[in-house]
Amino acid sequence: MSRGQHQSKKLKSLGAALESGALAQVRRILNSDLQAADVAHLLESSPPKERNLLWNLIEDENEGEVLHNLSDELQSWVLNRMSVQEVANAMTDLDTDDVADLLQNLPNTVTQEVLTTMDSQDRARIEAVLSYPEDSAGGLMNTDTVTVRPDITLEVVLRYLRRHRSLPEMTDNLLVVNRHDEFIGILPINKILVSDADTTVREIMSTDIITIRATMEDTGVAQIFERHDLISAPVVDEKSGKLLGRITIDDVVDVIREDADHSLMSMAGLDEDEDTFAPALKTSRRRAIWLGINLMTAFLASAVISIFQGTIDQVVALAVLMPIVASMGGVAGSQTLTLIIRGQAIGHIDSSNVRWLLSREFLVGISNGLLWAIVVACATYFWFSDIKISLIIGAAIIINLIVAVMAGAFLPLWLKRIKVDPALAGSVLLTTITDVVGFFAFLGLAAGFYF
Amino acid sequence: MSRGQHQSKKLKSLGAALESGALAQVRRILNSDLQAADVAHLLESSPPKERNLLWNLIEDENEGEVLHNLSDELQSWVLNRMSVQEVANAMTDLDTDDVADLLQNLPNTVTQEVLTTMDSQDRARIEAVLSYPEDSAGGLMNTDTVTVRPDITLEVVLRYLRRHRSLPEMTDNLLVVNRHDEFIGILPINKILVSDADTTVREIMSTDIITIRATMEDTGVAQIFERHDLISAPVVDEKSGKLLGRITIDDVVDVIREDADHSLMSMAGLDEDEDTFAPALKTSRRRAIWLGINLMTAFLASAVISIFQGTIDQVVALAVLMPIVASMGGVAGSQTLTLIIRGQAIGHIDSSNVRWLLSREFLVGISNGLLWAIVVACATYFWFSDIKISLIIGAAIIINLIVAVMAGAFLPLWLKRIKVDPALAGSVLLTTITDVVGFFAFLGLAAGFYF
Repeated sequence: MSRGQHQSKKLKSLGAALESGALAQVRRILNSDLQAADVAHLLESSPPKERNLLWNLIEDENEGEVLHNLSDELQSWVLNRMSVQEVANAMTDLDTDDVADLLQNLPNTVTQEVLTTMDSQDRARIEAVLSYPEDSAGGLMNTDTVTVRPDITLEVVLRYLRRHRSLPEMTDNLLVVNRHDEFIGILPINKILVSDADTTVREIMSTDIITIRATMEDTGVAQIFERHDLISAPVVDEKSGKLLGRITIDDVVDVIREDADHSLMSMAGLDEDEDTFAPALKTSRRRAIWLGINLMTAFLASAVISIFQGTIDQVVALAVLMPIVASMGGVAGSQTLTLIIRGQAIGHIDSSNVRWLLSREFLVGISNGLLWAIVVACATYFWFSDIKISLIIGAAIIINLIVAVMAGAFLPLWLKRIKVDPALAGSVLLTTITDVVGFFAFLGLAAGFYF
Repeated sequence: MSRGQHQSKKLKSLGAALESGALAQVRRILNSDLQAADVAHLLESSPPKERNLLWNLIEDENEGEVLHNLSDELQSWVLNRMSVQEVANAMTDLDTDDVADLLQNLPNTVTQEVLTTMDSQDRARIEAVLSYPEDSAGGLMNTDTVTVRPDITLEVVLRYLRRHRSLPEMTDNLLVVNRHDEFIGILPINKILVSDADTTVREIMSTDIITIRATMEDTGVAQIFERHDLISAPVVDEKSGKLLGRITIDDVVDVIREDADHSLMSMAGLDEDEDTFAPALKTSRRRAIWLGINLMTAFLASAVISIFQGTIDQVVALAVLMPIVASMGGVAGSQTLTLIIRGQAIGHIDSSNVRWLLSREFLVGISNGLLWAIVVACATYFWFSDIKISLIIGAAIIINLIVAVMAGAFLPLWLKRIKVDPALAGSVLLTTITDVVGFFAFLGLAAGFYF
């Protein structure tokens, strides 16, 4: 039986034990049978009451590893119920970057208290990582590099490694530095294995490799890892050329996942860390704000309609048909918006191709506008037998679809330039535009034609 | 200067060379200066005309690597303009899984032709991978495993490796098999380095490790890699226990990116592989279908409104206010829908917690419904000084918000059960429900109260 099947069997027996209240058994499964990552996933998939119960059954020595595997949202939840000493204990076995990650979720005063409980070397390392923003290469890096000098032979390297008895996880390269700790190149572990023992490091090291600046944004780091299929990459100080640490693919995968989730969740006004099982009160408070913002745009649309109350009073069919114009604009615009936001996230869009993109969207707006204007106009004529309304709704749809795709393209570009998150603000602004323009075009044309 | 800065400098000079028409220079940069991954990214970020020009300047021997780095959408585009022999040549230097990936984008007859040009060992390997669905572990795996027997010493292993002179990329473990090729365990490369040469493989190999079934879905594979921070994992035949191949993190990262993109893009009716720079005609045809589907739901909403034409004729304020009810429902519902779709994608939601989730959403619907009903009712009274309409819109908002969050929660669960993609079908169905219920509740209550 494979490991994976074992795990899911254990999870099932855990569920049964939980339901029957056999807590000793639950405790055993949590602390001995399951891996920390599985326990973390279990906590993330549990409603608050079970979550509380499970966390209390995890033994102190396992808390650190589980904690590190939890999402940001749940880390805060757990950290808030631990004392400073408990937090410090839980962190003893973790990598520098993971400790720094956790500390970033704590209030500043608690962070300082936890740091004072550490020995000075650990503290210095963690403070180095903490000195960079959380979403930068520096905040993502780990200081557990294994470095060698270029002029020694592989035999010496191997002797040195055997003395250490273990290498940090995800070590695919040793990092070659000179006596000033300046980064020179990498020595792939695999090359050590297949080369003769009397070769020197300099002879087989690679120097044409990608280094990461400590100040680089984490999404940029992720693009480099994705594009070049890296397992780890050295982080180097821009000015001094000194080796600062390294970034590993496991942390990059988290960035990729969060980054991709970010666009999806933000477009619905949710946080990418949003806890699926947050209590009703907590999640409804957050979502209420988003509804409030959308309510304002809805009232704005109503205000536009109210200008034309007189027209609607005369031709009530306008009230029946007006949501079609707004809705088609909303859909067309959000397609463009999504495409551009995704393109920005993968790094496809820059000043060299943006003009082509805008003119392409303009063409898409015109052609789809024409197509659906004809369809809607025919359907309207068939329904109301009124040629005037049919022509008016057709014209309104063309106008709104063109405006919608142009807004869907311009908004994210403009929002990014003024450093506002396009995924978060884009969809609300777009809906406002397509509703207002949709109602205004349709009812305005009607008012003009009928009076 | 770091490698990364070098690259972006080269890209800039490429842009300048392209604009000035210095094709010889462009050709040199494309084929010697840039890595295949960067060239692929450049092609993906180029409008069709430049893309064509660039592809023609890439030399035959580099085509394979560039091709492998392209998105599915662009792979098809390139493959369609190559002859069978060119395709076969381009594939000579690629990994089995990458070749299989490419072949899956070709018509079946072409695939067969390409396979006949290969030697029998390569063909057998590729056919093995092709025999699994593209989105399964088998379709994702590579057959370039380095295997060892448990009873040999590390010295023998090292001698064997030195004879090979190179290891496949992303090799963090050698795989230990018995004489029947059945998988026994892994021998981490790092352990070879830090252990004495006379140790046997059996003494230091790990046997409690995660294996992947060949039939597992690729999203499941991604979750395992993410959760356990793997670089590679062995793929094993469920029944025989035989080692089939291995999956590496670089391919898993692509699955994670595609999977996360899928939800975002599908909710706007787009394909996750959608080419950002597709020609206007191609992209507008695809998007037109989505607009057509949405038009049907819009006409359904109009049909509901038309039932109450008489009521609107009497109280025109209803036409002004009705979009608010529909829009609030749409927003509230899409928040729940997004949360559940994301939860499904990460594997957080199963039968054990779904009931809790539904009741939580019900509470969120009631509380946000009440809150915004009061706000909207007050705003309406302030605007129209009509207590009846204020009460009616408040009631309609409570009804629609509760229906919206319940639909947002039930729809993806139900769609997943009937094997329809929740991200694709969910948002259209949800809008239909929130529009229809919104208009019906508001206008229906009004009709009841006024007559």
